[in-house]
Amino acid sequence: MPVPAPNLYPDFNTLRLSHVCLNVSDLARSRRFYTEILGFQVTHESDTHVYLRAMEERGHHCVILQASDRPGTVEMLGFKTFDEADLDRADVYFKARGRPTQWVERPYQGRTLRTSDNIGIPLEFYHRMDRLPPIHQQYALYRGVKPLRIDHFNVFSSNVDDSVAFYSDFGFRVTEYTEDEKTGRLWAAWMHRKGGVHDMAFTNGSGPRLHHVAFWVPTPLNIIDLLDLMATTGHVANIERGPGRHGISNAFFLYILDPDGHRIEIYCSDYQTVDPDLEPIRWDLTDPQRQTLWGAAAPRSWFEHGTEFVGAEVRASELDASPIIAP
Amino acid sequence: MPVPAPNLYPDFNTLRLSHVCLNVSDLARSRRFYTEILGFQVTHESDTHVYLRAMEERGHHCVILQASDRPGTVEMLGFKTFDEADLDRADVYFKARGRPTQWVERPYQGRTLRTSDNIGIPLEFYHRMDRLPPIHQQYALYRGVKPLRIDHFNVFSSNVDDSVAFYSDFGFRVTEYTEDEKTGRLWAAWMHRKGGVHDMAFTNGSGPRLHHVAFWVPTPLNIIDLLDLMATTGHVANIERGPGRHGISNAFFLYILDPDGHRIEIYCSDYQTVDPDLEPIRWDLTDPQRQTLWGAAAPRSWFEHGTEFVGAEVRASELDASPIIAP
Amino acid sequence: MPVPAPNLYPDFNTLRLSHVCLNVSDLARSRRFYTEILGFQVTHESDTHVYLRAMEERGHHCVILQASDRPGTVEMLGFKTFDEADLDRADVYFKARGRPTQWVERPYQGRTLRTSDNIGIPLEFYHRMDRLPPIHQQYALYRGVKPLRIDHFNVFSSNVDDSVAFYSDFGFRVTEYTEDEKTGRLWAAWMHRKGGVHDMAFTNGSGPRLHHVAFWVPTPLNIIDLLDLMATTGHVANIERGPGRHGISNAFFLYILDPDGHRIEIYCSDYQTVDPDLEPIRWDLTDPQRQTLWGAAAPRSWFEHGTEFVGAEVRASELDASPIIAP
Amino acid sequence: MPVPAPNLYPDFNTLRLSHVCLNVSDLARSRRFYTEILGFQVTHESDTHVYLRAMEERGHHCVILQASDRPGTVEMLGFKTFDEADLDRADVYFKARGRPTQWVERPYQGRTLRTSDNIGIPLEFYHRMDRLPPIHQQYALYRGVKPLRIDHFNVFSSNVDDSVAFYSDFGFRVTEYTEDEKTGRLWAAWMHRKGGVHDMAFTNGSGPRLHHVAFWVPTPLNIIDLLDLMATTGHVANIERGPGRHGISNAFFLYILDPDGHRIEIYCSDYQTVDPDLEPIRWDLTDPQRQTLWGAAAPRSWFEHGTEFVGAEVRASELDASPIIAP
Repeated sequence: MPVPAPNLYPDFNTLRLSHVCLNVSDLARSRRFYTEILGFQVTHESDTHVYLRAMEERGHHCVILQASDRPGTVEMLGFKTFDEADLDRADVYFKARGRPTQWVERPYQGRTLRTSDNIGIPLEFYHRMDRLPPIHQQYALYRGVKPLRIDHFNVFSSNVDDSVAFYSDFGFRVTEYTEDEKTGRLWAAWMHRKGGVHDMAFTNGSGPRLHHVAFWVPTPLNIIDLLDLMATTGHVANIERGPGRHGISNAFFLYILDPDGHRIEIYCSDYQTVDPDLEPIRWDLTDPQRQTLWGAAAPRSWFEHGTEFVGAEVRASELDASPIIAP
Repeated sequence: MPVPAPNLYPDFNTLRLSHVCLNVSDLARSRRFYTEILGFQVTHESDTHVYLRAMEERGHHCVILQASDRPGTVEMLGFKTFDEADLDRADVYFKARGRPTQWVERPYQGRTLRTSDNIGIPLEFYHRMDRLPPIHQQYALYRGVKPLRIDHFNVFSSNVDDSVAFYSDFGFRVTEYTEDEKTGRLWAAWMHRKGGVHDMAFTNGSGPRLHHVAFWVPTPLNIIDLLDLMATTGHVANIERGPGRHGISNAFFLYILDPDGHRIEIYCSDYQTVDPDLEPIRWDLTDPQRQTLWGAAAPRSWFEHGTEFVGAEVRASELDASPIIAP
Repeated sequence: MPVPAPNLYPDFNTLRLSHVCLNVSDLARSRRFYTEILGFQVTHESDTHVYLRAMEERGHHCVILQASDRPGTVEMLGFKTFDEADLDRADVYFKARGRPTQWVERPYQGRTLRTSDNIGIPLEFYHRMDRLPPIHQQYALYRGVKPLRIDHFNVFSSNVDDSVAFYSDFGFRVTEYTEDEKTGRLWAAWMHRKGGVHDMAFTNGSGPRLHHVAFWVPTPLNIIDLLDLMATTGHVANIERGPGRHGISNAFFLYILDPDGHRIEIYCSDYQTVDPDLEPIRWDLTDPQRQTLWGAAAPRSWFEHGTEFVGAEVRASELDASPIIAP
Repeated sequence: MPVPAPNLYPDFNTLRLSHVCLNVSDLARSRRFYTEILGFQVTHESDTHVYLRAMEERGHHCVILQASDRPGTVEMLGFKTFDEADLDRADVYFKARGRPTQWVERPYQGRTLRTSDNIGIPLEFYHRMDRLPPIHQQYALYRGVKPLRIDHFNVFSSNVDDSVAFYSDFGFRVTEYTEDEKTGRLWAAWMHRKGGVHDMAFTNGSGPRLHHVAFWVPTPLNIIDLLDLMATTGHVANIERGPGRHGISNAFFLYILDPDGHRIEIYCSDYQTVDPDLEPIRWDLTDPQRQTLWGAAAPRSWFEHGTEFVGAEVRASELDASPIIAP
């Protein structure tokens, strides 16, 4: 098995993924898309930024829309640590691995450590974020797809084995993975911290690039509602793939593109993974049901399109890309 | 508008579509598919036939599976009339139009008139069918997709204008239609008797051939359940198209193929059409959302594959088939 | 069986129930309730009236809210006939039965016949109503419980046998009924014209009074959404009974009260009843599951509260009311 | 605030609740109820025991049915620790608090520590349990309510303040609670380890007694399916309360009683609680919506009935029980 044994006692405790900052060309247009179509709540906005949260979240933001002259790029991926001291331990940890670290100021957050992973993805760790009153029972506020919380990131990596080893070292655990039988190498892997199928997933491809950020919704019917809404409000071209069920993760999914091409997954139905002795599920690269349990092929764009991270150089995959696109 | 005015006072009263007889190669295999995967109830079976009903139906059968050396063909489409005298009036009516008629014996049915429509589709009209006790509240019997009732037939016609005129003459009313703007001819039409979007639909293509027979289920989640079940019981290749929402009819749909290639639509979400002054909804042939509101293209097989009617000669369409297949 | 044989060839053709006019004390407040909480669309409004339609309806109105100094009363129940001539035949018919008839002017409707039934319920028949463009695929307009169409009326009658006989005479057919075994009399009956379980139902009690008007919604989840919305917008006291499943009709239901005490049923899951030989389902008055399949008792208010019809004198029931309220 | 600060660094790491052992009078009858009605999978059975798991679980059992001459009592509540060493630390911990501990043999489990909490509830901690292959994508096995996993225990405690303090000491964190304003004492509290609203909840009442064990299902529609199934298979009397939405936890719930009176909650829709700085939500004892967001009162039995733990003496509550039963 090419999956490393989980590190159950990592040097610092990453609690969960937390938020993403997306660069956009037209802030007003993106705000409309994220609030009126998707249903996020605005928690702060200025001429340059819109902060959003989903309905069950009490932290200040899970998405930051940032007006930018590099729209369609990703500023960073944010993670919350278990406590403040974890930030200092993370600083030591990343420095020891030769990664750049710096303490940065971020609105609505406490101390924030900026670093990057082994392939250059900009990461920001914090412990404290402004806490807001619960709104999950203010049902008059629910709109669009009724997003409940941010669920996971999925990124293209030019070397999935290396990415998995890197995140495994600081405690991410693999729940499912795709193996290339011929080479014995990982094609893709799903890794978690918070007890679901993933906080972070890696897929083979030119990278680093963000494949998608995913949000959790209550039931498949909310996803059907979103499709109906998008299809009849001029957003049919923003629907990329789905609805369907992934073999991997068992998720009921829909993939859409925001106005700048950032890919969003709307998602429900994964499973609980808190057991440290949870056995990762292996999928064969030649099994088409791993992608879509129901058999429908994904469009080519889904395999090829991703959004670059600011400051991260994209490298070609070390593996042949053809297997996953073959019918 | 190429749609004829509805004939509100037809010569005889066709109440609704009723049942279909499908020729199959392996009766036991087909029985398993219709009962264990789809969830129909067997009401009678012999070495040569299996009679099935859906959960809210009180008539004896809505599907007859018939062992045949011509598997993948359709024996006939069945319709129920409002009363017995309608059968005699139908006999006069079809004779006057030069169609062959004969009185046939059919198990579990009263007097049955066999005839055929203008393009040769074999039709059988009856008024009385054995009535069975209600089972719609015996929830322990529900299985598979939980089919509630037969909903409609959809057939390829080589001349949709003629087919619509023929059925309109005896009272079928158009609810939605697709028009080829250049020629002013009908491309497809949906016609009803029982107060939903359709009992019978016609699509341009080599015909007559049955495109599909459709069954009604309670909610989209039953369709998702069926997809999960088929995908994990060796039937992934029987899933042809969907799930999705049609622009036309607003139906949430799934298309599957039975073991002999008969296409089944699983369906919910149409609307009430009992008003005689209901205005038909016109769709443009160039509007891709008429087929899939959400934009996903149908596979080529969905446009091309159909099952022939016993004894009916198939003729090529008089219109160019390319428009609906173009991306 | 105390149910009269259906009159399949009535003197005039009532197509379906159509609309209701409810007297309210505070038009603005009622408008908010029907649009923001329930999700109806306003099609016309003035200082004295608000006209509403549900999402799949093309007729101009299914509910008229009328500012009144007799709030909590019902102005009339409206029905659509199959054609114009049916109105004249209805005029003859009701006159022959000693009922008052008059031709009245109603906005957005053609010729309208006002009469009353055997126990004094004011009825209005029309054939033509202004037709509006379809909005059922304008998903951005959907709100609240996403009402699709008006489904039925349910009224208290002091003599259900007489009411059923009266409506049966002009073509309403019984689908389900409750019989008092000791007396052999009808306790309640559900009667239809349009092919569902009912357009009109009668329940034993002081009458005539409107028990409720019902609206059809897509799935049980829409009803759960409404409960969440009402419970968190100050309307928890307007929730009277449910959610639950009726034994009779198999409906998944919720009963709520509007700001003036008019009872609304939100409803899905009945079944098709177009067959003229459909056998009515008999329920025993002592079977508690006829009311709630799942066994929960209805609150006392549900058995006792109703809203009076303008101009109709209420008479006590001729039967003992205790059986249905007993635990 | 009467809620103790969470102990984020407890002496040993309890991962999650794991399983319950219920004493039953008729093992075959209980087996039928848990498999055919609820849909659990049998993983082992003998003349005296039936072991069950839910559909997404990989541990060998979440419910043990045990034939007993004390049916309707509970043998113990089971918890899984993060690692083996946690068991030894737990042994030290409970001994230091004067609780009895012993190492017991349990089939399909590794070393198991039996102890009891401050009010005498028998607890068993283990780390290793036999792991079984995943079945969550074998959709042909899904039946009944489609239970996915065990979710939480809820117990009556005669002193909720003490119970919360006891579990807080070893790391359980409060997510929501009900406070009696007059006395400043806790009336009820919900505490978690695994990142949902609760693994363990305490309610004021004669205790210790198990109020219920809860299982997670995919959507509210599965709960409606279960109601229909129970209501039409002779189990209507086993339906106690619901469906409804709790104010506390926001759960969509149903409470049923198994053949021996063990209360089962079927449940979906809580929220993620992994943040260590998650603020507990306070409910007032006088707010009826804390129990049922939609306002319907719970039956008296729900407040009074519970099942005793083997060997644990029941003591009367120290608080007046009237407030929660008052309308």
